Amino acid sequence: MKHARVIFEGREHTGTSHEFNGQPDAAVRLEDGRVVPQEQLVWLPPLAPTARPRTILALGLNYADHAKELEFKAPEEPLVFVKGQSTLIGHRQQTHRPAGVQFMHYECELAIVVGKTARNVKRDDAYDFIGGYTVANDYAIRDYLENWYRPNLRVKNRDTCTPLGPWFVDAADVPDPMALALRTTVNGTVTQQGSTRDMIFDAPFLIEYFSRFMTLSPGDLILTGTPDGVVDCKPGDVVVTEIEGVGALVNTIAAA
Amino acid sequence: MKHARVIFEGREHTGTSHEFNGQPDAAVRLEDGRVVPQEQLVWLPPLAPTARPRTILALGLNYADHAKELEFKAPEEPLVFVKGQSTLIGHRQQTHRPAGVQFMHYECELAIVVGKTARNVKRDDAYDFIGGYTVANDYAIRDYLENWYRPNLRVKNRDTCTPLGPWFVDAADVPDPMALALRTTVNGTVTQQGSTRDMIFDAPFLIEYFSRFMTLSPGDLILTGTPDGVVDCKPGDVVVTEIEGVGALVNTIAAA
Repeated sequence: MKHARVIFEGREHTGTSHEFNGQPDAAVRLEDGRVVPQEQLVWLPPLAPTARPRTILALGLNYADHAKELEFKAPEEPLVFVKGQSTLIGHRQQTHRPAGVQFMHYECELAIVVGKTARNVKRDDAYDFIGGYTVANDYAIRDYLENWYRPNLRVKNRDTCTPLGPWFVDAADVPDPMALALRTTVNGTVTQQGSTRDMIFDAPFLIEYFSRFMTLSPGDLILTGTPDGVVDCKPGDVVVTEIEGVGALVNTIAAA
Repeated sequence: MKHARVIFEGREHTGTSHEFNGQPDAAVRLEDGRVVPQEQLVWLPPLAPTARPRTILALGLNYADHAKELEFKAPEEPLVFVKGQSTLIGHRQQTHRPAGVQFMHYECELAIVVGKTARNVKRDDAYDFIGGYTVANDYAIRDYLENWYRPNLRVKNRDTCTPLGPWFVDAADVPDPMALALRTTVNGTVTQQGSTRDMIFDAPFLIEYFSRFMTLSPGDLILTGTPDGVVDCKPGDVVVTEIEGVGALVNTIAAA
């Protein structure tokens, strides 16, 4: 099932994916039964109110081709940073490009949503602790990046810099999360293509790695990195980050 | 006023600082009027349940003498990382030292608690957005630190690595937070001494800096860095990080 959290007619609703005019996922069926087309809704990040993330983890350079693209060597241990909650916005919202920066790029990423409390989980059991998946767009301002060791806070912690959604997809509905096509379009042109198969550190590895030294809680997010193909985004650009079977996350760039 | 959040007789309580046997702060007066000595309580991080931090920010190398001690140059822009909530524990709790590491050090830090939503705040108005202060001990595992650019997640995001408390002290009761003595003792011996006066980036600067690109929310924490004088801590050590007028945070090291 694909779950959404939206505002409609001034009230917050939960709902699930529904077809509209023959298009799958083009609408949301609200909990009261009404079916509302995507564009009539204000979308919130697809997080359960009862399981807000306590911690948002994000991988840097987790695809070898993207590391090469940025002229960094691939990490030998996961390169991870933590993000604040003020970064999150929903589907169809605007992300601000700061004034005067030279290069702002999107990053299409599979986001793992932790399903239950995880501590010292072994790789073979890792999928039991994953509740579901969504799509994240982990924007970065290249100007602020001093080197790959230091994801300066401003690179990745600006308000609105992490669109998330549209859907929270139950883990059971994603049979092989490590073989999903990723794709980004900017104004309709494909600019990034890849597969989650090419992650350096895959989902089970990450659950084992993190849970060795920290407790993962229900709702916690792990943004798993992006493949190569990142380009500069300007105000007005419509950026769609899409992952096979998980969703197509639409986002527009606005001037700050 | 100094506020605490504690468990007593199996129930969570709020309370305020109270003297006991002539010693200030030696007990908590619970909201039901009972006065309970410190050692009979289980202490929680002193955060309001209605204002849990959305984001925990922490400064690296914010005192020039500590940067020198670690043989790093002082940063020209705040060196900041975000911490997950699973790191937090309360006063009089245990912090685990991982097996096999060579050097684990404490860091006595003034923690700013954001009081109201802050966005684009000017330096001159910054104190209006600070709700209060507490003491943090931002433990680090030196072994995991590759260089000053990369506070590897494991350095600063292990469970229990951030004792916080005992008290949340109202901002009005800390007339000059930029002139407070800091002191750490290990097993009763003074090992670290400094003053918040020596911060490179002070509290008003930090509020202005962060709020330029991200929203600070009530309950968010800013851990403002530590002066020099860090030493290795072994299982069994009792570490007291103390800040003048804010509190004395007691913590014990345990083997993982």
